[in-house]
Amino acid sequence: MKVIIIGGGAAGMSAASRVRRLLPESEIKVFEESGYVSYAPCGVPYYVEGLVPNLDDLVTYTPEFFRSERKIDVHIHSQAISVDVGASEVRAIVDGNETIEKYDYLVFATGALPIVPNESWLNSTRVFTIRHLEDGEKVRLYSKEVSDVAIIGAGYIGVEMAEAMSGIGKRVTIFEMKRVMPVLDQELSGLVKGEMEKAGVAVKEGFRVDSLEDNGKKVVISNGKESFSFDAAILAVGVKPNVELAKKAGIRLGQHGGIDVNNNMLTSVKNVYAAGDNVEVNDLVLQGRKRYVPLAPEANKEGYVAGSNIGGKAIEFPGSVGAAVTKFNGLEIGTVGINEEEAKQLGLDYYPVKIQHNVRASYYPPKGGLTMKVLFEKRTKVPIGAQIVGEQIWGRLVALSLGIQYKLTAEQLFYAGIPYAPPFAPVWDSTIVASRIFYEKI
Amino acid sequence: MKVIIIGGGAAGMSAASRVRRLLPESEIKVFEESGYVSYAPCGVPYYVEGLVPNLDDLVTYTPEFFRSERKIDVHIHSQAISVDVGASEVRAIVDGNETIEKYDYLVFATGALPIVPNESWLNSTRVFTIRHLEDGEKVRLYSKEVSDVAIIGAGYIGVEMAEAMSGIGKRVTIFEMKRVMPVLDQELSGLVKGEMEKAGVAVKEGFRVDSLEDNGKKVVISNGKESFSFDAAILAVGVKPNVELAKKAGIRLGQHGGIDVNNNMLTSVKNVYAAGDNVEVNDLVLQGRKRYVPLAPEANKEGYVAGSNIGGKAIEFPGSVGAAVTKFNGLEIGTVGINEEEAKQLGLDYYPVKIQHNVRASYYPPKGGLTMKVLFEKRTKVPIGAQIVGEQIWGRLVALSLGIQYKLTAEQLFYAGIPYAPPFAPVWDSTIVASRIFYEKI
Repeated sequence: MKVIIIGGGAAGMSAASRVRRLLPESEIKVFEESGYVSYAPCGVPYYVEGLVPNLDDLVTYTPEFFRSERKIDVHIHSQAISVDVGASEVRAIVDGNETIEKYDYLVFATGALPIVPNESWLNSTRVFTIRHLEDGEKVRLYSKEVSDVAIIGAGYIGVEMAEAMSGIGKRVTIFEMKRVMPVLDQELSGLVKGEMEKAGVAVKEGFRVDSLEDNGKKVVISNGKESFSFDAAILAVGVKPNVELAKKAGIRLGQHGGIDVNNNMLTSVKNVYAAGDNVEVNDLVLQGRKRYVPLAPEANKEGYVAGSNIGGKAIEFPGSVGAAVTKFNGLEIGTVGINEEEAKQLGLDYYPVKIQHNVRASYYPPKGGLTMKVLFEKRTKVPIGAQIVGEQIWGRLVALSLGIQYKLTAEQLFYAGIPYAPPFAPVWDSTIVASRIFYEKI
Repeated sequence: MKVIIIGGGAAGMSAASRVRRLLPESEIKVFEESGYVSYAPCGVPYYVEGLVPNLDDLVTYTPEFFRSERKIDVHIHSQAISVDVGASEVRAIVDGNETIEKYDYLVFATGALPIVPNESWLNSTRVFTIRHLEDGEKVRLYSKEVSDVAIIGAGYIGVEMAEAMSGIGKRVTIFEMKRVMPVLDQELSGLVKGEMEKAGVAVKEGFRVDSLEDNGKKVVISNGKESFSFDAAILAVGVKPNVELAKKAGIRLGQHGGIDVNNNMLTSVKNVYAAGDNVEVNDLVLQGRKRYVPLAPEANKEGYVAGSNIGGKAIEFPGSVGAAVTKFNGLEIGTVGINEEEAKQLGLDYYPVKIQHNVRASYYPPKGGLTMKVLFEKRTKVPIGAQIVGEQIWGRLVALSLGIQYKLTAEQLFYAGIPYAPPFAPVWDSTIVASRIFYEKI
């Protein structure tokens, strides 16, 4: 039995490893266009910042490891050109030679692509996107020669790149069409903006970059009214599913443009699976919706599920609530589910709770706090979204994420066994207090 | 309407505040034997260690605050002597005068008492227990004059007092009948023991203190074979429910010796409630059992529930999974549910998973890890116990605690939205990996 996997990132290698575990005799081929497999692009900002000394540190396993230890036939710098699902064939450039490979099972694990408002912007050697590890290398090298850096987009990657660039002493300006961390509602977004400005980052909100031009010395960024010049610009306006190959092969796409899969990660075509940042999955916040969730834990588990099903173990990926976390310097930022803006657009009947709270017993040093916003759906009494900004947010986000995913009511969250000791939490922890506020209303 | 509350700790003041909120016109009297109400005895070790400068810092609200802001008639240094539930009367020494007070509702919030193997041990002025804030004051004062300190008992309080005493430069020996942190299974207990020894604490496990004598200069501790001398000794062998008053009043006790309450926190006697470290509650790990859980979050919520029911809002305290956390220096220690020793004694059909895991992406500094042990019940597939020792354990313990309490299966925990970013967690976090190991078995 032969399995071909297109893409050697988290989802692809997770699928490959799972097939190998379940089917020791199968033939498994992976085509990866970059020079790395099993890499962590989420680590790129920390490599640029110098916290991670070597690019290789961002690689969990090398191609060599997969070939020798797991008998997975990994080909880097290799690329699928087209797929014929009728003939079960992939045409690809493998190690420099164009070949046609037959498969019994195929997995699309082609990941995401950075959204580029205008392809011509990439003609400048001063303009960068972050996708593969090699992009991190380019940015790190180039950053040594520059002083003024623009970051376009203030989502997760934009904020992380701003931390990295200001961390190595660059003058950073961040442009955002909407607001900093647009996934946060205005009041929490403002806290992140404040932290960025404290670090000397110039924040331009409500700024839509209409043109980006390289004048031979500088990158000039304009919204049609104001112009700013920089030594370099990083595009971080978001990502979209990389689906061209699948689309041309006749694989069905979904409402968000990602590959449409069932819970087994099977596409619309028999024996063809997909996993990772190129698919859309069930939204576990609101029933019946799909969600595009380009996040590493999801990609890994989707790959695991695809590989399991190919290997004969029928399991299902239930979907995602989209829990995500990052930080800017000392300020941690986390979200899960939907924000108030979305809740309003959807016409949901919700109750928002917003609190500021200590993260330790008030007497236990050091002082530390967070701001938490939780939306409870009035009808079901369960949380449908949470945002946290501050210190020590991870554990609180975990509690709320589980609450959203497994439909725990405010009452259940209020009575949840949240462990307490003075160095770890107040006796009434923020998750308990936020739940109590809604619980007392009902 | 008049409510009397015996005990002004977490449970008592939580109940009092809730009644006040719901019944603005009621008369509420609180009798507290110590000089503080609304205090946090869990902070005592950190006061002794000097991390908390003033004893008053451990008090959330003063008696004056309750009297003036919440119209709660608080009496410190006041003690109930007897209760006549037939006549609905409490005989008490209030502000030095013996009086009889009628009540419409009564709440026993008498807390716990330190277990003292032999009452005569307390005759020595060199021997201390930790219950009220005043005990912290005594220990802090006395500790200035001593070099060698014995701690008897290596549970939560013993370990915290050992951290405090070694933190201020004392030579500490800790005696424990069983093993360090007996709530942990042997292998995780050993990690805590190692950390204590690294800090210079002498750990004597399997040592049952048979005699403790004050020879006029030293406290001599012996197990009948070996003897050791110290300048001071702290008894921390555990706590038991403080129920004498309730027992004499004819209130029914439960299997663990705590006051038997229903989910409304009502005792066996009409209009008499109980909350806090003097009650036993539903065990949410194994159905049909009761559990004695002398923990602050439980006490606060039980008081809240008792007060709500008195105030006319019928709500229920569902019970507890006993989630608890502490630390010794940099080593964090957490447990929830039952350990393997108990699971064996109960004859449960369980599957133990033990892993060591990073707490951040492997490339993100600093390196940090934890050891996690999770027991899954084979029949139901849900976790019934978890123990974690290491760094950054709190959020992981939260996830497993919710899993145990709300019966999430290994599959549900595997697919849980655990937020990931390199500074916060590995992409396959320990909770996911532990769940996967059992999930793959089934």
